Amino acid sequence: MSLAPAIVLLSGGMDSVTALYHAHSTGAVSVAVSFDYGSKHNEREISYAAWHCEALSIRHEVIHLDFFTRIFQSSLLQGGDAIPDGHYAEENMKQTVVPFRNGIMLAIAAGIAENEGAGRLVIAAHAGDHTIYPDCRECFMQGMAQAVREGTYAQVSIDRPFISMDKAKIATRGTALGIDYRKTWSCYKGGEIHCGTCGTCVERREAFLLANLTDPTDYLETPLLPAAPC
Amino acid sequence: MSLAPAIVLLSGGMDSVTALYHAHSTGAVSVAVSFDYGSKHNEREISYAAWHCEALSIRHEVIHLDFFTRIFQSSLLQGGDAIPDGHYAEENMKQTVVPFRNGIMLAIAAGIAENEGAGRLVIAAHAGDHTIYPDCRECFMQGMAQAVREGTYAQVSIDRPFISMDKAKIATRGTALGIDYRKTWSCYKGGEIHCGTCGTCVERREAFLLANLTDPTDYLETPLLPAAPC
Repeated sequence: MSLAPAIVLLSGGMDSVTALYHAHSTGAVSVAVSFDYGSKHNEREISYAAWHCEALSIRHEVIHLDFFTRIFQSSLLQGGDAIPDGHYAEENMKQTVVPFRNGIMLAIAAGIAENEGAGRLVIAAHAGDHTIYPDCRECFMQGMAQAVREGTYAQVSIDRPFISMDKAKIATRGTALGIDYRKTWSCYKGGEIHCGTCGTCVERREAFLLANLTDPTDYLETPLLPAAPC
Repeated sequence: MSLAPAIVLLSGGMDSVTALYHAHSTGAVSVAVSFDYGSKHNEREISYAAWHCEALSIRHEVIHLDFFTRIFQSSLLQGGDAIPDGHYAEENMKQTVVPFRNGIMLAIAAGIAENEGAGRLVIAAHAGDHTIYPDCRECFMQGMAQAVREGTYAQVSIDRPFISMDKAKIATRGTALGIDYRKTWSCYKGGEIHCGTCGTCVERREAFLLANLTDPTDYLETPLLPAAPC
């Protein structure tokens, strides 16, 4: 049985770009959806998202959500506090939480899937996702999967092809798919080039290192990678 | 135990305005949230939503979602086909479906609840909701309730105080709470006054009739109410 056409949630980071190529290589991608919610790095990552959609001839929809910066407090958002440096740990990571972000994005993507007659959402959730974010937890995803399935005529499913893979394995998979990771964006600071020191830059650098791949990213700084917290 | 502060989903229709007064009479309302998603009747209903929030001194947030009219096809939306007349039945009602609308609204409200430290969402889902809309069904709501609870630090709940009441009972409850229903909007056509003939006007008229209340609404036409389909 061939896979139903997919809606891919595409931030423009390593994981979601890999999910796009993976979905494209295994079935039809109906629409790739990016969310411009006012994060400091939205502009950088969405321009890469658009680049890959054009390269693969996939329709790209950018959803503008202006209420995030008006209502939500998070250091991830424009106008928020500075992005913390260093490996993710509970306290610095909490500053970057955007309330129920995955829930909001999945709900909107579900509406688009229903509208387009696409049977599934593809999201690059992976084994390294941080359970400190409540809307990355398994119980959240199970509830959301039920809501999306039961709340759509098409009984849309949520596919997580990388759920048992870590970021290094995703980099390996994406390299095999021919992805140019220079055209992806991770850094939460959203500067001219990746900072190399924020939590998400640290994880990006680690992924290439653990995958034994050359990291093609230009970083502002590349201090020795700190050990991950136990 | 007193109730946690609530976020109320407030369209400006009879049911949600009653839910606002009900929530206000039983506990603190942190924020009332309206969604401007480009429906033909948004402008009318949101102005009433704002009126009631001001009357009750409740903070009112209007969330603008411009992608609905850009991406979704529905006769409910500006630019869509004409709103069908007559009692709701499967075929004419399907034209007014907006894909996963309840899911999208509940997800955004959950984010606001988490941000504001509110412990619950109040939605005016009721016994007369049409199960032809998949995102009004019980299995959808159960999944969404799990997603919202598990996806927030505050374990936000979804409260449906009217789930065992029909629209006539809601009108009775609201009248006891002192609500002026002239300051609510139902008509999907969004004209100067209620048309009196579209599915939602028919249900509004029926609610007052069945509740044995004087209907204070000005209608363009008031043909004899058709019998509900069996």
